[in-house]
Amino acid sequence: MAAPETAEARVRDSFAKQTIMGTIGASVAAVKPGEVEIVLPFSDKVLQQHGFVHAGVVATIADSACGYAALSVMPREAAVLTTEFKINLLAPAKGERLRAVGRVVRAGKKLIVTLGEVFAEEGGQSKQIALITASLMVIDTGTGLRD
Amino acid sequence: MAAPETAEARVRDSFAKQTIMGTIGASVAAVKPGEVEIVLPFSDKVLQQHGFVHAGVVATIADSACGYAALSVMPREAAVLTTEFKINLLAPAKGERLRAVGRVVRAGKKLIVTLGEVFAEEGGQSKQIALITASLMVIDTGTGLRD
Amino acid sequence: MAAPETAEARVRDSFAKQTIMGTIGASVAAVKPGEVEIVLPFSDKVLQQHGFVHAGVVATIADSACGYAALSVMPREAAVLTTEFKINLLAPAKGERLRAVGRVVRAGKKLIVTLGEVFAEEGGQSKQIALITASLMVIDTGTGLRD
Amino acid sequence: MAAPETAEARVRDSFAKQTIMGTIGASVAAVKPGEVEIVLPFSDKVLQQHGFVHAGVVATIADSACGYAALSVMPREAAVLTTEFKINLLAPAKGERLRAVGRVVRAGKKLIVTLGEVFAEEGGQSKQIALITASLMVIDTGTGLRD
Repeated sequence: MAAPETAEARVRDSFAKQTIMGTIGASVAAVKPGEVEIVLPFSDKVLQQHGFVHAGVVATIADSACGYAALSVMPREAAVLTTEFKINLLAPAKGERLRAVGRVVRAGKKLIVTLGEVFAEEGGQSKQIALITASLMVIDTGTGLRD
Repeated sequence: MAAPETAEARVRDSFAKQTIMGTIGASVAAVKPGEVEIVLPFSDKVLQQHGFVHAGVVATIADSACGYAALSVMPREAAVLTTEFKINLLAPAKGERLRAVGRVVRAGKKLIVTLGEVFAEEGGQSKQIALITASLMVIDTGTGLRD
Repeated sequence: MAAPETAEARVRDSFAKQTIMGTIGASVAAVKPGEVEIVLPFSDKVLQQHGFVHAGVVATIADSACGYAALSVMPREAAVLTTEFKINLLAPAKGERLRAVGRVVRAGKKLIVTLGEVFAEEGGQSKQIALITASLMVIDTGTGLRD
Repeated sequence: MAAPETAEARVRDSFAKQTIMGTIGASVAAVKPGEVEIVLPFSDKVLQQHGFVHAGVVATIADSACGYAALSVMPREAAVLTTEFKINLLAPAKGERLRAVGRVVRAGKKLIVTLGEVFAEEGGQSKQIALITASLMVIDTGTGLRD
């Protein structure tokens, strides 16, 4: 089996191993160097008590968008692990689907800092509903962790 | 239908409406005034690419533990909504199950600040794997939102 | 004494009351609706043990830039108070001066969420050294707090 | 000149180099392995526009309490640098003095996570006014940085 040759293939290959994404119904919408988009169609499996998408689910796609944005700029022998993130919820997460966009702000040798935005889309309109900042640690795949 | 009479009944009643909890397999383990515990058995539905529980799933149970800790000290006519949280991931989330404990640090009239810890349990041992701080806004149920 | 008539006058008037700004040597560089810049010349009064500007000082100007960005979009009868902020330090804070830019991301009735960036400037070059997200609570000046 | 022999001597020695602490009037109150206390007497040099201690100043002493708690458990050849912190402001910072207590939650090889609390003290009473979580990166002093 050939190794993935591009950042996009690498991201999509790793994303396919994140079983939570299949469980909630999320998919990768776009991959560019340093920027990844993930979309989540609204479904009745991912809600909190008022019928909005749960903040933790919003965080799940936002964290993965940020993590894969980081991975997209990493050399092949490095993996990444989230060490912390903070999310501000700006408005209720409702609509036809959510779109999370993660971007690399600074890629250091040991830590990568990312910024992400989540939008709720409905009827052709888009509204920002969350803002996330996340730090990822660069891990040598010699540890056995691979992305 | 009678209204739930205790904080515990209220928390369990609201939790049952969070469809994401059924989707990932989480349940309420304990409710005390100002403190709520949620447990999540390890399963292959909630993982990231290395086989650990996804940071967003850890955040999901931690956020709900904090949110319900806040709700447990609210008057009946108030609901709560998370406005922000930050989570530090301390170690990989693996083991037989995760246990999230949320506690109220300060309950103001408009905002409630909470602190939560998540532990991985395996073979009778418990290890802290995450630390969360979350803010919740107090919402008048006259807005139509109820918990 | 006439009341300040513009957002800029209001911000500068309030900033002049922040005694910490005189103590560290910071000043307002620019005010636009929803965006405020604060600058801090490097000095030997504001350092940590390695000779960089202390992270708390970086946070001080970043928090005020965000808070005044929020205030710049508030009606006259409202004041603002920071309820939380998170800052990622991206690189050591050194150079001729620091420049913090705060912007409003979402202005709700009760809470305002802001995003700020801090840059180190030296020899005509600018490098981002910090990223902040901050929440501010809207306070009725009927409480006695005025900005 | 002899090297500091104890964690406490090491913390106090490094703290003395943080010029911002002299500028605002803060001092080290106590050092134990993994826990450090810093106190700041109220003064008219450190205020925001309402006459409370500025949130950034509260963060400054909280960040240093956390950073020195981390340093207190480090081997002699390692230094620490804050990579991020988040602070929740729970109540206005006023009174006779502030007391910040930082504690190590987890000390990894690359990152140390800490939790801190800040209290306002007045007339023998103490009230918690802030909650902080901070990450510190472990730096080899071979880089030239020493604490």
